[in-house]
Amino acid sequence: MPRPRKLKMTEPQTAFLGAGIMGRPMARNLLAAGYPLAVWNRSRDKAAALAEHGALVADSPAAAAEGAQFIFVMVSDGDAADAVLFGADSAMETATAGACVIVSSTLPPQTAKAQAEQCRQFGVDYLDAPVSGGEKGAQDGALAIMVGGEREVYARAEALLRALGRPKRIGESGCGQLAKLANQAIVGATIAAVTEALLLARAGGADIGAVREALSGGFADSTVLQQHGRRMVEADFAPGGPAKYQWRDLQNAVSAAAGGGVETPVTSAAAAMFEEMLAAGDDYAELDHSALYQFWKARGPT
Amino acid sequence: MPRPRKLKMTEPQTAFLGAGIMGRPMARNLLAAGYPLAVWNRSRDKAAALAEHGALVADSPAAAAEGAQFIFVMVSDGDAADAVLFGADSAMETATAGACVIVSSTLPPQTAKAQAEQCRQFGVDYLDAPVSGGEKGAQDGALAIMVGGEREVYARAEALLRALGRPKRIGESGCGQLAKLANQAIVGATIAAVTEALLLARAGGADIGAVREALSGGFADSTVLQQHGRRMVEADFAPGGPAKYQWRDLQNAVSAAAGGGVETPVTSAAAAMFEEMLAAGDDYAELDHSALYQFWKARGPT
Repeated sequence: MPRPRKLKMTEPQTAFLGAGIMGRPMARNLLAAGYPLAVWNRSRDKAAALAEHGALVADSPAAAAEGAQFIFVMVSDGDAADAVLFGADSAMETATAGACVIVSSTLPPQTAKAQAEQCRQFGVDYLDAPVSGGEKGAQDGALAIMVGGEREVYARAEALLRALGRPKRIGESGCGQLAKLANQAIVGATIAAVTEALLLARAGGADIGAVREALSGGFADSTVLQQHGRRMVEADFAPGGPAKYQWRDLQNAVSAAAGGGVETPVTSAAAAMFEEMLAAGDDYAELDHSALYQFWKARGPT
Repeated sequence: MPRPRKLKMTEPQTAFLGAGIMGRPMARNLLAAGYPLAVWNRSRDKAAALAEHGALVADSPAAAAEGAQFIFVMVSDGDAADAVLFGADSAMETATAGACVIVSSTLPPQTAKAQAEQCRQFGVDYLDAPVSGGEKGAQDGALAIMVGGEREVYARAEALLRALGRPKRIGESGCGQLAKLANQAIVGATIAAVTEALLLARAGGADIGAVREALSGGFADSTVLQQHGRRMVEADFAPGGPAKYQWRDLQNAVSAAAGGGVETPVTSAAAAMFEEMLAAGDDYAELDHSALYQFWKARGPT
């Protein structure tokens, strides 16, 4: 199996596993910041697109991780992250002791804790570092990055993370994913609140585009009002963030909260709206989460 | 009864009725923009504080409104607005035909429609122009201003409104108040969502100050996360926007939506949280609406 050629480097060599919608622009920003990168993706063509930006394309997670000091993981979910870290041809087969795994995929806090523990058995450090800000935030190097892990490990990785956006250490392993759950709960509930408010205004005869503009800059203003609100006004529901993941995240937030003894009536109500939307058919599941507006408008009172 | 002396003016003479927490800085911004102002307030000392900025202090709404081309109203609610416009010694006793009443108090859309109709019988135009952005927004001349009324009347008043912030016409009479209801629904629901999300993070062992910072700039970011979120982290619950008004606004939003055939599960859930908070004692009613966090944390699971 081909291995990336050894790089002559001034910056730490870095592996990047997962070159999808989010991973590709993140990898590009690391390359632009001067970090030599070995990239692997399940379908090779997506990784190959990064070669012209200076990345080496690896044939397996193991090949990408060999000799790397940092191993980024940006795959679809916890199972996929487990596979690239610990499965066949995985990063742990070749990872150097003292390397640092940085998982930016969104996955449950307890999965992050378990992965940190497994990595420790290989002498490898671990940070959970999920992000918020979407494809545009990734492209602009302006992601919110929520990090869990040991303070010293975070300090080592901070410069790399700054190439991707604004990193912030929240606490020990799992706390980054916990903050991401909190993030997703707020996003889902705010989308639901904006949906209800615009439909209320519309029912009273107001122009919802004018309402969205008028609310800008006041206490009701938010990234959701700006970005998802614009999608609602323009009926542009191409994802973006698919509704099915928003529902999953809201469910995870509600059950994590319940496990901690926290009642979440607003987050739960938002989760129920998305659940109803997804039950209405597959078409909605793949639309952007802002399409909740479209569904709720079409649904009418029950 | 003393009347304001006649001003020699280049800008339209303006009456300002209500010089409270919001009205005072708004009046000051109009004065700073060069509009001669006659100010009335129920307790005269608050109006008198504006004399040093060049305002004339009037003894009644009628005295303030005499000769005015614009009559601002910024009093506590719909009843108070009715009183200064149509009661004893009220603005309509002296208002010139062709004058324009601008009501920035928050009141129900149907009250705005009724006031517009009553003013029309005096030959006086009417705009509902409620605001969002709080005392700070008023001080900075950075309020979101949601306006309902005829297009031509709005065009006439727009320059004055720009001295206060960003005005936006939403539609006919009542639509400004409708947009304010939408605004308040979003604010209340977002405060509830941020409350739940921070408590979820806290239950999992995260530092909520770090979570708030980490979420800044991502999709979960909002004016509420920034301003009310900071209050939650710092346990600073001096109002600001008292919780009792937030509850009233959420109730009004839910019932206006229901009247229009729109179901609002998230706004309703937020209203129920505030209702429970207010039922817990008078102390909570007067605290800032961000104190929902404090209440929900102390309450624990039922």
